[in-house]
Amino acid sequence: MKEALHVALLGYGTVGKGVYETIKQHQGRLQKLLGKEVKVVAVLVKNISKHKLSDRSVILTDQYKDIINIQKLDVVIDAIVGIEPAYSFLQQAINRGCHVITANKEMFAHHSKDLHALAKEKGVTVGFEATVAGGIPIIQTLKRLLNANKVQKIEGILNGTSNFILTKMREEKLLFTDALSLAQDLGYAEADPTNDIDGHDAFFKAVILSEVLFGEQPDWGKAVRVGISTIKSEDIAYFQSLGLRFKHVASLQRTNKTVVCTVRPVLVSEAHPLYQVEDVQNAINIEADIVGNISLQGPGAGMFPTASAIIEDIIHIDDKEYGPCFEEESSISESAEQLWIAYGENALLGLPESAEVIKKIADYTWLVKGDSNDNAKFDIRYYQLLGNADSVKAVEKVH
Amino acid sequence: MKEALHVALLGYGTVGKGVYETIKQHQGRLQKLLGKEVKVVAVLVKNISKHKLSDRSVILTDQYKDIINIQKLDVVIDAIVGIEPAYSFLQQAINRGCHVITANKEMFAHHSKDLHALAKEKGVTVGFEATVAGGIPIIQTLKRLLNANKVQKIEGILNGTSNFILTKMREEKLLFTDALSLAQDLGYAEADPTNDIDGHDAFFKAVILSEVLFGEQPDWGKAVRVGISTIKSEDIAYFQSLGLRFKHVASLQRTNKTVVCTVRPVLVSEAHPLYQVEDVQNAINIEADIVGNISLQGPGAGMFPTASAIIEDIIHIDDKEYGPCFEEESSISESAEQLWIAYGENALLGLPESAEVIKKIADYTWLVKGDSNDNAKFDIRYYQLLGNADSVKAVEKVH
Repeated sequence: MKEALHVALLGYGTVGKGVYETIKQHQGRLQKLLGKEVKVVAVLVKNISKHKLSDRSVILTDQYKDIINIQKLDVVIDAIVGIEPAYSFLQQAINRGCHVITANKEMFAHHSKDLHALAKEKGVTVGFEATVAGGIPIIQTLKRLLNANKVQKIEGILNGTSNFILTKMREEKLLFTDALSLAQDLGYAEADPTNDIDGHDAFFKAVILSEVLFGEQPDWGKAVRVGISTIKSEDIAYFQSLGLRFKHVASLQRTNKTVVCTVRPVLVSEAHPLYQVEDVQNAINIEADIVGNISLQGPGAGMFPTASAIIEDIIHIDDKEYGPCFEEESSISESAEQLWIAYGENALLGLPESAEVIKKIADYTWLVKGDSNDNAKFDIRYYQLLGNADSVKAVEKVH
Repeated sequence: MKEALHVALLGYGTVGKGVYETIKQHQGRLQKLLGKEVKVVAVLVKNISKHKLSDRSVILTDQYKDIINIQKLDVVIDAIVGIEPAYSFLQQAINRGCHVITANKEMFAHHSKDLHALAKEKGVTVGFEATVAGGIPIIQTLKRLLNANKVQKIEGILNGTSNFILTKMREEKLLFTDALSLAQDLGYAEADPTNDIDGHDAFFKAVILSEVLFGEQPDWGKAVRVGISTIKSEDIAYFQSLGLRFKHVASLQRTNKTVVCTVRPVLVSEAHPLYQVEDVQNAINIEADIVGNISLQGPGAGMFPTASAIIEDIIHIDDKEYGPCFEEESSISESAEQLWIAYGENALLGLPESAEVIKKIADYTWLVKGDSNDNAKFDIRYYQLLGNADSVKAVEKVH
């Protein structure tokens, strides 16, 4: 048997604990797959007195130097939050020749290019499956399974907290604030939930996907980012009566020379794969040019789903690097037309000239076809529709 | 640039044409990915006079010897149907050192073990992504992305034709025979639709998945295989009023020492990922021990989805072989309990003793918890339920 793979863990919160426990529990399997033992040799925490590890031979420390100076160290796993000190820690780890694996979306959205470049220089790999959609293997699906395909568009529910809130508001007819409190009580939302409900978290994930898919980031300044806090319970109930559900969707599309990113509440009709994605589930709909549409759905967060993504990254640290092949020219020449629901007494007055009313669905509610480049002209009372026009039936009377 | 990759195509029906066109259309991309041109050098057809290739330098033949004797040949792609002569053809191809890629589920369900063994001996690879669920990369997801995870159960809609028929019977209130005719008119069903509607096709796909997941096949003799031809339109309408949809689901589960395979109509409640999988779509729900549940959905057949799977296999012919690590012991010690809908005036009388009635849902309709090993005791009026017990509400009056 080869010498063990020595792993250090930064952070011992939900994700860190999940990784620690999974490595322990599935040691036999990991040994079979890697041909060697996987050994957690050190764990970095903020406050040593608050934690206790079952294995006393593992170094528990609040000093990163205790970790980076370990003589035999192969992999550093980042399970902390925030840009710093995580970024500096991983730079140091790569510089000394360690593979790194991260679950830290905010850090990685800001520094993926730098970390990839440094890792390439040092001949190590960067695993980041856990940064997007938890246990759904979306990064590896895009990097390793859809190589000949060119992905043209992605639409995803990438934040479990906001999806949970929208689900509860509809199912239990809760106010936004009450659904948020419930999410906080259940541990799904932080004390400060801004990142989740305002779409920052989903945006970071979209940025990471964009780098994988298109080799570049969307323009941060031009991205549309609308949160869910302005959605009213009565609007949710109203659209439910029309067969439509609010979902907080991040979308990425490559148009001429740029990547357009939006994170906003949209309305989804029943036949669309994102319609029944409820509670804390995540899902991603991939539109690729050979295969067509593929959707992946699964747990977007949580102790073991996230640990799963990290452990699978450990299995593949020595693999050949894969990736889609980026083409200079845009594959979408014409700007794709979008469907919208225009809602409100004067909704039609605010439409851009290029928009075309397809049909009236109910009182003060119309289905509209518009130019996807005209986002700025639509305010929050215009919701993009996911699903086709036929899926939205005109109703006689709304109950 | 390295010498071209020389490919021969067996069959020039829908799938064969899709592969031929895709290779032509995306040549630039394939060259970038493989570092060399991909060149179709020969196509095998039954009747030469019926076909015409746009590129006249490609050999069009009805004799396999014309293909197997081509001096420079790297990959043979099987896009024909039926066990023979496909199996013999691929054996010969492997024997002379060619990689093989197949879309032929019936052949591969019967001979995957032999072909894998022969390919290993000869140092070539066998690509078979296209045999299961068309464009959904389920084989590679299981082989390459979920290695540390152990898959415990799979439930899938693996046959687009039967799913289309069930969808139309519900949506358009068609009789089975009329929905089948519609499927035939649209080219979704063969003149002899037996393989699709009786579940043979789905069973072959389940067999292939079982080999990937568990390293062994289910017992063909013990597998439960029930088709959809006995499902009545009025039953579909009745269960729709209860919020349930019929789906033709193939399931695989590893229990002590054996793999249990069933293909049968089940009832699915709305929150389950298979509920909104409609028309010719396929979907697979994977239950794995670390990550939990993941679902994949996409086009299960068709010219370009299937071609996509084959082209992606071409990209990976030289890759390291991956696979889940099979464990001797079963990971499921207790036999998992299943939920069933018992339906009919005397339905409760036919229940096995171990079954437990959870609640009455409507007149003559009960939710029952049963032992999954008791399948044989349930006849077709007992439908397994996918979804949790709470998702089925008792109704006052069925409309």
